[in-house]
Amino acid sequence: MSYRVAILGASGYTGAELVRLIATHPNMEIVGLSGDRKAGMAMAEVFPFLRHLELPRLVRVEELDFSSVHLCFCALPHGTSQEVIAALPRDLRIVDLSADFRLSDPADYEKWYGRPHAAPDLQKEAVYGLTEFYREEIETARLVAGTGCNAAAGQYALRPLLAEGVIDPDEIVIDLKAGVSGAGRALRENLLHAELSEGAHPYSAGGVHRHLGEFDQEFSKVAGRPVRVQFTPHLIPANRGILATVYLRGEPREIHACLARAYEDEVFLEVLPFGELPSIRHVRGSNFCHLGVIGDRIPGRAVVVAAMDNLTKGSSGQAIQNANLMLGAEETAGLMVAPVFP
Amino acid sequence: MSYRVAILGASGYTGAELVRLIATHPNMEIVGLSGDRKAGMAMAEVFPFLRHLELPRLVRVEELDFSSVHLCFCALPHGTSQEVIAALPRDLRIVDLSADFRLSDPADYEKWYGRPHAAPDLQKEAVYGLTEFYREEIETARLVAGTGCNAAAGQYALRPLLAEGVIDPDEIVIDLKAGVSGAGRALRENLLHAELSEGAHPYSAGGVHRHLGEFDQEFSKVAGRPVRVQFTPHLIPANRGILATVYLRGEPREIHACLARAYEDEVFLEVLPFGELPSIRHVRGSNFCHLGVIGDRIPGRAVVVAAMDNLTKGSSGQAIQNANLMLGAEETAGLMVAPVFP
Amino acid sequence: MSYRVAILGASGYTGAELVRLIATHPNMEIVGLSGDRKAGMAMAEVFPFLRHLELPRLVRVEELDFSSVHLCFCALPHGTSQEVIAALPRDLRIVDLSADFRLSDPADYEKWYGRPHAAPDLQKEAVYGLTEFYREEIETARLVAGTGCNAAAGQYALRPLLAEGVIDPDEIVIDLKAGVSGAGRALRENLLHAELSEGAHPYSAGGVHRHLGEFDQEFSKVAGRPVRVQFTPHLIPANRGILATVYLRGEPREIHACLARAYEDEVFLEVLPFGELPSIRHVRGSNFCHLGVIGDRIPGRAVVVAAMDNLTKGSSGQAIQNANLMLGAEETAGLMVAPVFP
Amino acid sequence: MSYRVAILGASGYTGAELVRLIATHPNMEIVGLSGDRKAGMAMAEVFPFLRHLELPRLVRVEELDFSSVHLCFCALPHGTSQEVIAALPRDLRIVDLSADFRLSDPADYEKWYGRPHAAPDLQKEAVYGLTEFYREEIETARLVAGTGCNAAAGQYALRPLLAEGVIDPDEIVIDLKAGVSGAGRALRENLLHAELSEGAHPYSAGGVHRHLGEFDQEFSKVAGRPVRVQFTPHLIPANRGILATVYLRGEPREIHACLARAYEDEVFLEVLPFGELPSIRHVRGSNFCHLGVIGDRIPGRAVVVAAMDNLTKGSSGQAIQNANLMLGAEETAGLMVAPVFP
Repeated sequence: MSYRVAILGASGYTGAELVRLIATHPNMEIVGLSGDRKAGMAMAEVFPFLRHLELPRLVRVEELDFSSVHLCFCALPHGTSQEVIAALPRDLRIVDLSADFRLSDPADYEKWYGRPHAAPDLQKEAVYGLTEFYREEIETARLVAGTGCNAAAGQYALRPLLAEGVIDPDEIVIDLKAGVSGAGRALRENLLHAELSEGAHPYSAGGVHRHLGEFDQEFSKVAGRPVRVQFTPHLIPANRGILATVYLRGEPREIHACLARAYEDEVFLEVLPFGELPSIRHVRGSNFCHLGVIGDRIPGRAVVVAAMDNLTKGSSGQAIQNANLMLGAEETAGLMVAPVFP
Repeated sequence: MSYRVAILGASGYTGAELVRLIATHPNMEIVGLSGDRKAGMAMAEVFPFLRHLELPRLVRVEELDFSSVHLCFCALPHGTSQEVIAALPRDLRIVDLSADFRLSDPADYEKWYGRPHAAPDLQKEAVYGLTEFYREEIETARLVAGTGCNAAAGQYALRPLLAEGVIDPDEIVIDLKAGVSGAGRALRENLLHAELSEGAHPYSAGGVHRHLGEFDQEFSKVAGRPVRVQFTPHLIPANRGILATVYLRGEPREIHACLARAYEDEVFLEVLPFGELPSIRHVRGSNFCHLGVIGDRIPGRAVVVAAMDNLTKGSSGQAIQNANLMLGAEETAGLMVAPVFP
Repeated sequence: MSYRVAILGASGYTGAELVRLIATHPNMEIVGLSGDRKAGMAMAEVFPFLRHLELPRLVRVEELDFSSVHLCFCALPHGTSQEVIAALPRDLRIVDLSADFRLSDPADYEKWYGRPHAAPDLQKEAVYGLTEFYREEIETARLVAGTGCNAAAGQYALRPLLAEGVIDPDEIVIDLKAGVSGAGRALRENLLHAELSEGAHPYSAGGVHRHLGEFDQEFSKVAGRPVRVQFTPHLIPANRGILATVYLRGEPREIHACLARAYEDEVFLEVLPFGELPSIRHVRGSNFCHLGVIGDRIPGRAVVVAAMDNLTKGSSGQAIQNANLMLGAEETAGLMVAPVFP
Repeated sequence: MSYRVAILGASGYTGAELVRLIATHPNMEIVGLSGDRKAGMAMAEVFPFLRHLELPRLVRVEELDFSSVHLCFCALPHGTSQEVIAALPRDLRIVDLSADFRLSDPADYEKWYGRPHAAPDLQKEAVYGLTEFYREEIETARLVAGTGCNAAAGQYALRPLLAEGVIDPDEIVIDLKAGVSGAGRALRENLLHAELSEGAHPYSAGGVHRHLGEFDQEFSKVAGRPVRVQFTPHLIPANRGILATVYLRGEPREIHACLARAYEDEVFLEVLPFGELPSIRHVRGSNFCHLGVIGDRIPGRAVVVAAMDNLTKGSSGQAIQNANLMLGAEETAGLMVAPVFP
């Protein structure tokens, strides 16, 4: 069977990444694409790398006909997403890639995003989209909220450890290095090649990055008590990729065993042999996440490093993985493409 | 049906690219991998980006059993290839990715490679692997010689034009920009990040680059008279990609029409609308080649620009395309993966 | 003696490059900085890399007092520059870095820039700022028009050859590779890191790039007859640098001898030994231009390659060199800083 | 007065950086250059970016005449350095850039470098070269040991804080991002452009990086008790630069005040306003180190970030700063060159 999908916000990077991956998906077909500012244009004009594909022309959201659509990916900007989704048919399956439905508590949403949520009923309905940990809920969900890309990397490194209590939940530092595509296709001075190439710098440091909202919500849930992590993201001169270096208190071998056990059956989560650490370039363009554990010379301290592609496993690949579950397709369908190296 | 293939020289970039592409090939299975210097190692150690795949361990060539192998890819260094292939079973189908069998005239080989060929009988047998122009010969060939990556880019831009006589064959300049992976995984000072990043420079200029041997052989054959092009390759700070800017004498519209007509049915060769020019980043990681034509303000002059990925369409993708033909598989099998952008 | 200078448009890349170089200039002092959109800000906020310097705060142009200023650098956008300069004191020495006064013929200006010049009297007064060829005029000029960065690279490669008639003036192809800072600090999608890194593509091809106006004007003047070159600029993933590969008809050794002779006494123009070609990375951050000549295998054809930093020798370094001449300072003052490598 | 200096190991990156900086030093003159593997070559051949300079030809160390040399920079590989220096005249002033004399305790040296020191008397004599903290000793020293580049970055962030006791010395995590030139010009696979570009990964993690020897020695000395930090260096795709993100326990404002006070009179150490964090690209190519402090949302936790150029402030710039002190020259001579941006 072939599933008909639409993509809202197809003129951004996550939208394009959805198209890239669906292009070789065995049973998913793109029947609608929206991109308000670029409505009327062909995808080949907006993204010439997709010109070999036969794709619908970009239209405005309200021009799309959802009657025969099995599932809709929503890759719109934060804030816009909740408004658009509120106006979509209420029986349409949706995977949202924005931040709008990641936090389930309205107060949390307002705290981190600075305004009340415009669709609190949908916020309540939405299932958090970290596939490996919400598989059953996702299978039956109508609305799935894709996680933040940084949030996903941090959670893959930490959830099993918090769940099993093998680390001190009050002593967690996440130092994260992120490629520039995570910031989207926005026209901002700090995203220019000349400003970024040959550089590296922290941003949203000191506890203000919005993905902390997800960390707080999820880690506290997993640990059964409030957990607050320290988190410093850095921008590095790479287009894709997240490398999360996580500093922990606990027995390194126990930490490694815990992660290896937790992800034993997971296709996309690879735990490296103890002492080996991953690299962004080994997951680029793929849905795989590599995880490594090493002990420090100071007893009782360990470092977990997670590497993944922010656009794939951190966003559009995850979205397709969730869509596969929601549609009853093979979970890995369209996602087994190998990383691109070099 | 599933075809069993072996890859010799799997520890280099073109070998790894073969594995990457075959990983999602619907009917090709890797049953043997050789890599002399890294014999005994797992591919995941040599190329951690392939760790999600179940692959044979690297062995020495002589340890491989070819009895049940349908086809062998040979990604060995130039010079080594001819010796190794000469020792392989004479009924084994082979796609060679080295330079060893590209030139059919022993004198030409000696001129460009500085020594006599070690397997002149095989040299005679080999079919030149520029798929779109040697499709029939390749289908029945036992030994196919993959083209040089730069040579492929230049030929896609020029062959139909020379064949139809719409350009002056004595007035051709190919200015080529190449990513660094084309030089392989060799430990050379000029391939270090610190020597290459933020730079750009010509190399093998003035008529000494070996791919000129292919240009001379093929263009003269196509034009039915000797053709000598001017060719200056440049190294640019990108990992993958070739951009060939070709300066020509002829009517720009006629040139565009000629290319569009020639490649009308070709899946992997995309001729852009007249006046649009391609970019490396729109073909990266894929088997597609984008071609653009523009006229100059000086009447009777035109520029053709070809963009492709040196490791894919320029080498390993081409090799699989040829293997598909030789094995009777779908020509595009395993090759429809979209470019990776950004 | 110390010369007091002002910089208009100090919040762009060429403005910042002026400040960087003047910072170690032995007898130049910055007494005024304008930047309309960032008026009121400290330079350290706009360009944190300059924070070690004591600099005037950015103000609006009209807030500057020119009464004690010896010379004013104008690094404003094209179009704005002519309006602002027209309103400055008529006895103020000015080095303009924009395109506004490069073309001396009003018709040429209108042809290439699409509108009539707003200050035709100043246009007539302006001296073209290619230092090595207009030294005497610059020494006594009040208004000097900095050349285009690409235009400078091409002219260094070609002027002596056209002047001495050692090449065919009807057979010139300039294939140019340019770093991204040449496009300025503009917020344009194609200048984003994610759009440019790992890529390369031509732009303004086919005879429409505005620096062709300068080539036409200058080359025709030098050759004493109309000269029209073919010119294709390409954007490469580097922040700084221009590499111009120039294809010529003429005797390679004669071409080399001609350039070597012409630049024998020039501090900043280095002609490499015959057969050696330059690289962007060897001039980055400096006022030097390296030139190389090689012959082709086709007799009577040669390639000249020029490498320079677009922001330094191509713009701000040239501007200071001209200012030194206008002020009676040592021509090389502040400009002998070595390239930054790696 | 002009000081005559020699540079041993001038064919590596730190050697070349010494030459680059000395090129504009007002009173230092290079009278000898050694480079064993490249003996006989001109520096312009080894480093074409230095071709505008008149420099002595590279010779073997034993060919150098030190009789009229005021000071010798030794930029040789670790291990070699101690042997060569042991054979130099005992009254020759030396600034060593290798790791050989950084650790003053023979047992420490053997622990971190895996073999006994070959010149234990010199090891005892050597002064640690972190200029701002050893100024008086350096002024009268004969042999100064340049610090590790990572070690310098970490110490600038931490020394005043440990000295004044404003942080918990048992809770220090240094997460460091380093450009590739820190690894030198070695031919190693992981330093190839194709292996590094678009990537990022930790190396020497878990407490084995040799700069920990310096951290242990210096921090324990400063704190008056044993201090052991956690330290994870990462390689990022940039040529130059170190960004050290340091996680601390203490009052953020107090930490900021402590650093600001400590570096108030230091020309090269810039403490940014509280809450602002530095970036590699703002110090590239210069001798400046930018330091920023921010508080975390978790009370009592802070992050200090230090950015500097590994080749300049981290190595060759520091060496010249020390040489200036030893020779009685102005401490900042030759070092006030501004960073290169973009």
